[in-house]
Amino acid sequence: MSDNLPSWQEGKTKQTILDFVAAVTDESAESYVLPADRVATFDNDGNLWNEKPTYIQLFFTLKRLKDMAKSDPSLLDKPGFKAAAEDDMAYFAGLYPDNMAELAEVMFDTHAGMPQREFQTLAYDFLTNEKHPRFDVPFKQCYYPPMVELMHYVRDSGFKVYIASAGGMSFMRTVSEEIYDIPRENVIGSNISFEPEREGDDYYLQRKRGIIEPMDDGPGKPVNIELHIGRAPILASGNSNGDHEMFEYTESQADGRAFLNLLLRHDDGDREYEYDEGAERSQATAGERGWTVISMKDDFKRVFPF
Amino acid sequence: MSDNLPSWQEGKTKQTILDFVAAVTDESAESYVLPADRVATFDNDGNLWNEKPTYIQLFFTLKRLKDMAKSDPSLLDKPGFKAAAEDDMAYFAGLYPDNMAELAEVMFDTHAGMPQREFQTLAYDFLTNEKHPRFDVPFKQCYYPPMVELMHYVRDSGFKVYIASAGGMSFMRTVSEEIYDIPRENVIGSNISFEPEREGDDYYLQRKRGIIEPMDDGPGKPVNIELHIGRAPILASGNSNGDHEMFEYTESQADGRAFLNLLLRHDDGDREYEYDEGAERSQATAGERGWTVISMKDDFKRVFPF
Repeated sequence: MSDNLPSWQEGKTKQTILDFVAAVTDESAESYVLPADRVATFDNDGNLWNEKPTYIQLFFTLKRLKDMAKSDPSLLDKPGFKAAAEDDMAYFAGLYPDNMAELAEVMFDTHAGMPQREFQTLAYDFLTNEKHPRFDVPFKQCYYPPMVELMHYVRDSGFKVYIASAGGMSFMRTVSEEIYDIPRENVIGSNISFEPEREGDDYYLQRKRGIIEPMDDGPGKPVNIELHIGRAPILASGNSNGDHEMFEYTESQADGRAFLNLLLRHDDGDREYEYDEGAERSQATAGERGWTVISMKDDFKRVFPF
Repeated sequence: MSDNLPSWQEGKTKQTILDFVAAVTDESAESYVLPADRVATFDNDGNLWNEKPTYIQLFFTLKRLKDMAKSDPSLLDKPGFKAAAEDDMAYFAGLYPDNMAELAEVMFDTHAGMPQREFQTLAYDFLTNEKHPRFDVPFKQCYYPPMVELMHYVRDSGFKVYIASAGGMSFMRTVSEEIYDIPRENVIGSNISFEPEREGDDYYLQRKRGIIEPMDDGPGKPVNIELHIGRAPILASGNSNGDHEMFEYTESQADGRAFLNLLLRHDDGDREYEYDEGAERSQATAGERGWTVISMKDDFKRVFPF
């Protein structure tokens, strides 16, 4: 019998996943779910790829701040550019959630004011050429093969597989097909504003200083899932408090039918990072309600593709 | 040789469509387009289904206003409820585009203030049970089989097929799978605001008085296409000025490669309606730039499924 999840250790977690997929795909079972209703949503940062020592998109932001200040030193008058030039990580760590206005400024300075196609090139080049400070491989290689394997396994079992992340939708989409084999249209995320602009015969999308509401985090995830998919997931996968509402929504909308909430725990400091900060609420509720906790240490045969 | 478009008359329009699909799917041709880039977008009102004597969703809105006022006559103090009760169509015709604030009030009064699932039931029941005033069949039967055939033909040719309409996304999605065989997640439209709400163990989406920007009309269409699909269409199909920017975007993003803009003209008063109002700008540009104009009268063997 072929192993659908070869990168997963045998054990309770793997069996729970296999049992769930068997239950919803067995036409003779009461737990059967029609293919149209088999929706699976996966958070990205810390769930499909690494998010430590900080978010990959924040590394991109820092590089943009540095590159822009090199071209135009007058930008160093702005606190974000100055902090990046001085590698003052404490400055950036202090922005969220206490100074969202300044965080927005930094994001707009680095992510807006250019055509969409130009941003896509910047993001793709960064993810391909810049390296993770600890693992010394390009950022786009810092994904978790067991999770990608899980996405493919459920897709092959008739699920519609979506990424639902607080990260930038356009940023992730530049590599989602290459590293995850997930098409761009199945990647949901947060978004800067777009506006079409005309230049002669050219009619293109310009990135603007603004956010398309709602941000795809916390209570924004169920909203964006409805906007992009139109159905609630029956399988939700995430790792942090930002996924709590997606988990709650999945359980509530299942309304007694089969569902699977998967919470990835970062408990492997040797192979990756060990931290529970930012996941306290989801972990507590997972314990109370019996959601499935994936242990990176115990459940993953390997963590990275390198 | 099988006919992929049996409901279309032989002629220049049908041949243009067949030639375009052949050109982008022939791997040996310079005009070949990879499947991932084969995106087709179809406007809905007046393009996939009837929009006269007024938009189907406006009929729904009128029925809601009447039903609500029957339950609560004090609502008749509001101008929209009063106009609906008196069948004062001139009132509604005068709202757009001259009184958008009042139009928004009417839309929020009838489309917000309820859980998403409750709205879906209202919309589906209306489309299934209420009848078109001229054709005397349920509204959901007032679609154009030749256009549905076209969607299926390009989908079978490896295209990703999306609906991109100014109409309400949730409204259309209640029947898109049944009448078009287009899954909900491939229906893009305008949206009322959603917010998750908790009631005991129930965690669901409530419809709120507000609009998710941008509206999916005019310049909002390229923006929502980027948000939902992440690629520009190479085939765009519409019938009005609200599709002009989608057409422009399709042509500009093709950047010299093959693309197909299809503008449906309502020139068949016998079988449907005859009108050019609201399509003047798109028709003029189609003439200048050589976009393909579909004549309902000359190109459709049949107009409706009934």
